[in-house]
Amino acid sequence: MSSVTLVVRCKDRTGLVAALSDFVFRYDGNVLEADQYSDTEIAEGGEHGAFFMRIRWDITNFSLDRSGIEAALSVLSQRFDLDYTLSYDDEQPRVALFCSSTPHCVYDLLLRQEMGEFLGRIVVIISNHEKMREVAEHFSIPFEHVPVTAENKNEAEERQQAILKEHRVNLVVLARYMQVLSPSFVRSWRGQIINIHHSFLPAFAGARPYHQARMRGVKIIGATAHYVTEELDEGPIIEQDVAHVSHHHGVADLVRIGRDLERQVLSRAVRLHLERRLVIDGNRTIVFR
Amino acid sequence: MSSVTLVVRCKDRTGLVAALSDFVFRYDGNVLEADQYSDTEIAEGGEHGAFFMRIRWDITNFSLDRSGIEAALSVLSQRFDLDYTLSYDDEQPRVALFCSSTPHCVYDLLLRQEMGEFLGRIVVIISNHEKMREVAEHFSIPFEHVPVTAENKNEAEERQQAILKEHRVNLVVLARYMQVLSPSFVRSWRGQIINIHHSFLPAFAGARPYHQARMRGVKIIGATAHYVTEELDEGPIIEQDVAHVSHHHGVADLVRIGRDLERQVLSRAVRLHLERRLVIDGNRTIVFR
Amino acid sequence: MSSVTLVVRCKDRTGLVAALSDFVFRYDGNVLEADQYSDTEIAEGGEHGAFFMRIRWDITNFSLDRSGIEAALSVLSQRFDLDYTLSYDDEQPRVALFCSSTPHCVYDLLLRQEMGEFLGRIVVIISNHEKMREVAEHFSIPFEHVPVTAENKNEAEERQQAILKEHRVNLVVLARYMQVLSPSFVRSWRGQIINIHHSFLPAFAGARPYHQARMRGVKIIGATAHYVTEELDEGPIIEQDVAHVSHHHGVADLVRIGRDLERQVLSRAVRLHLERRLVIDGNRTIVFR
Amino acid sequence: MSSVTLVVRCKDRTGLVAALSDFVFRYDGNVLEADQYSDTEIAEGGEHGAFFMRIRWDITNFSLDRSGIEAALSVLSQRFDLDYTLSYDDEQPRVALFCSSTPHCVYDLLLRQEMGEFLGRIVVIISNHEKMREVAEHFSIPFEHVPVTAENKNEAEERQQAILKEHRVNLVVLARYMQVLSPSFVRSWRGQIINIHHSFLPAFAGARPYHQARMRGVKIIGATAHYVTEELDEGPIIEQDVAHVSHHHGVADLVRIGRDLERQVLSRAVRLHLERRLVIDGNRTIVFR
Repeated sequence: MSSVTLVVRCKDRTGLVAALSDFVFRYDGNVLEADQYSDTEIAEGGEHGAFFMRIRWDITNFSLDRSGIEAALSVLSQRFDLDYTLSYDDEQPRVALFCSSTPHCVYDLLLRQEMGEFLGRIVVIISNHEKMREVAEHFSIPFEHVPVTAENKNEAEERQQAILKEHRVNLVVLARYMQVLSPSFVRSWRGQIINIHHSFLPAFAGARPYHQARMRGVKIIGATAHYVTEELDEGPIIEQDVAHVSHHHGVADLVRIGRDLERQVLSRAVRLHLERRLVIDGNRTIVFR
Repeated sequence: MSSVTLVVRCKDRTGLVAALSDFVFRYDGNVLEADQYSDTEIAEGGEHGAFFMRIRWDITNFSLDRSGIEAALSVLSQRFDLDYTLSYDDEQPRVALFCSSTPHCVYDLLLRQEMGEFLGRIVVIISNHEKMREVAEHFSIPFEHVPVTAENKNEAEERQQAILKEHRVNLVVLARYMQVLSPSFVRSWRGQIINIHHSFLPAFAGARPYHQARMRGVKIIGATAHYVTEELDEGPIIEQDVAHVSHHHGVADLVRIGRDLERQVLSRAVRLHLERRLVIDGNRTIVFR
Repeated sequence: MSSVTLVVRCKDRTGLVAALSDFVFRYDGNVLEADQYSDTEIAEGGEHGAFFMRIRWDITNFSLDRSGIEAALSVLSQRFDLDYTLSYDDEQPRVALFCSSTPHCVYDLLLRQEMGEFLGRIVVIISNHEKMREVAEHFSIPFEHVPVTAENKNEAEERQQAILKEHRVNLVVLARYMQVLSPSFVRSWRGQIINIHHSFLPAFAGARPYHQARMRGVKIIGATAHYVTEELDEGPIIEQDVAHVSHHHGVADLVRIGRDLERQVLSRAVRLHLERRLVIDGNRTIVFR
Repeated sequence: MSSVTLVVRCKDRTGLVAALSDFVFRYDGNVLEADQYSDTEIAEGGEHGAFFMRIRWDITNFSLDRSGIEAALSVLSQRFDLDYTLSYDDEQPRVALFCSSTPHCVYDLLLRQEMGEFLGRIVVIISNHEKMREVAEHFSIPFEHVPVTAENKNEAEERQQAILKEHRVNLVVLARYMQVLSPSFVRSWRGQIINIHHSFLPAFAGARPYHQARMRGVKIIGATAHYVTEELDEGPIIEQDVAHVSHHHGVADLVRIGRDLERQVLSRAVRLHLERRLVIDGNRTIVFR
């Protein structure tokens, strides 16, 4: 079975669900998943709020070919002023992992790919440490060592951009990558970089969150996966999870417990992105489960 | 704003989402919520599986009146062989609470009603103990004391049925009601009785689940809200939740911790039913969140 | 069975566990619970860190009477420079609830007392709203209406202090009390005021945390019970819990979901305090489970 | 720092905590952790119940050598009729992993060892599939392929026993090993085999638990780590965890979500065993956290 996923965003108005589902039906598509969300809170301003819809259908017997679909959608998008993305499930997104020397998130993502959990494909691993090369090789993924220093940061990012281009990457995953990307790098990948922060944002943003957590004496720690924006740790949150801790847990314990949260949360976020279940709405995300 | 909720169930086929959303649109309804589910697993048999849809729309400017909606839907339902329920949000379901002498679930439901959490209205409390009368009176809900013994069980159920009829009840909630209802009673309220069982079903069905849990040495206990069927504790599960426990927790502790689970789980299940988010599919429930 | 609970805090050194358990044994006490904690992290400074111990024993056959116990403990405390509290389980702490107009936490605490979950006794309810009087009366608890305005704040607090004194209160629980207590009031009840904050501290301290959470687009909300200090929302955290939320949840939903967290977390914190399981260590709490 | 952990089990009586902590103190040991548990519920029979204690102390300056400790403990054990185990933290338990073809639990345990989470050491991997050899080699762990069929089961187990003996193994971890071990094999490793079952026991014991869960329509799935006994899936439970699921999740989704539970729960259980935090009490476990 071959399927396509359409994710739409526009100003709310009547007839949207009808028009989109009718489009699928008229050309003999069978809806596999359909979910919509109207942001009525913003709408309280009087005029309608934002409308979001994700619709996935079987195109095995669809009477439009891909160019026909594009054409038909461009008509629809003009009529309803749609902002949309269309993705064919047989066109797998190409993913790059950025990492430093902590391996748990990298192992986790690679193992999930090996076990067939992902729609996408991890095509390259970029690290500022040589250490991760053997992990990449074990999973037969190309590895690129790009050292980063205060001095060579620009050259390093040019090198990273070249690698991403060469591998035709669609999504960058920062799997505990301990370098801060420059605003220009981030802008060039808006909505396409996912980071895992090892705290329950907005609590403990910035450095050494587990030390901060220990100092504050919190009874729960967390991890947060978010899209990267120019403001560090301020991007739209995709997924979060937490674990209960106690006074018995020193910083080393929090780090250990946190590792389990980090890999779980990052992997879930990547999976949601690859299945086109995420829409960025200002500084929030709409998540179609 | 006035709205209506349509919940549909039928054999899956193409055009259902289009037809239903077009129906809403053609008569100037604005979709507030729409969610659908196609059971593709059962469909693996080759022919299509079951299709479920919940759609809620604003009828403030709807160009059909209620009889017009009924007429239009009957046409649709013949065309697509639909099994559907239609509910106007201004027609609040009328709820009866059955309870014995444990008050925590009753307090919880009454307090939530007082705080406006429910779409429905608790109209009567029926108990086999006098003890709960003062709770009912505190919240100004009619209270009916119906003692139940092995001897008078039939008469007691006739009395209960009469009370339910008198109060035009649509939903019966067993809020820790310690009597087993007869199969005939259950049949007469199919899909309209919600019970809270104080274990993580299917584990520890039957009597004294916390004692069973303590004996087995489980590290997690749970509670389960389900629709009542003729088979005790075997009905479609609506909602479940759990809590971690340890060897430190004796049966009394499990009972105490379990009370918090019971009221949370039961209240969530009742809320889902009252918002028409539940569809019974054989021995499972579809939950439109 | 009558029992006593000793909670000790001192500089760590060898022999403490032996000395304390030997004291219980020598006078024919049977240890019911014993737990200790040595803060080895702080100890990394070279010299020993802090030592904490909670020991509860059966005094049915104890060969020292209460004055004898006091005498023996004063000797021990001089020898080891102990900071300790001794509590007889038959001397129930006397609790005052402060509340405004939101009833869910008050109902929760009163119901738990009625169901025998607490070691302590709620002896008075103080509110700046008349509204809560009927709840107090339903549970037969004295109710005091103390209106608070910017002008009468000092007089109001004098009135509150007088009421607390009159009822010989040992613990003040702020059950969604929407007024800020003055530093002098807080100082006079150091370590004896528990507040529930409706966010996952340190995230969203201050006003309208659910609005803040909605704005930030977090995927999890929380509640935090803490001891009150002069710094608003900065006191030692006792207990926290969280719930998963989504873009579907508007502020009203977050408030509703949050209410369940607030009452659970506050009640657990109060219970821990009443069972003498809490020790304040700087800005953290040691929790003996 | 070198430390030793003593885990004691005996009939409850007065003076046990005093005697054990005094023993540590008298020979200049400093208590690092001490926790005890008296099973008062069983004690309700009138006579005392079971007493359990775990005490860990720094032996850097301990005035008894290892043989001296053994001698002193044998005296104590006679006096109090103690059942005890003594473990020096520098004597790492030697662990064997049994697995079939599903790699996630094996990767998880090996990665945790690599990241220093475990006190023990995984010294050999035994599998009935060749497939796992490369994983073992990547982490530089000896790998033994022992095919198992209905016919060769006895020979296979003899081979496995020989490998375990050769590697001086103390703990066998069944990391999704899909063969059932014979009663005689299990007896020879009583309390030294940990298995992960992919359901929330006692629910869905036996084969294909995720299919059973899907059929029953549960809203939560779980995983259970337990000691292996002659009765399949009936051994003492060590650790459990759960995840919320919905009607959207087909069997394949439950399997995927379950994998995350399995590796988390199994790893936690192994860690607890290696830190000597577990005591088997009939069919339950006492877990000293």
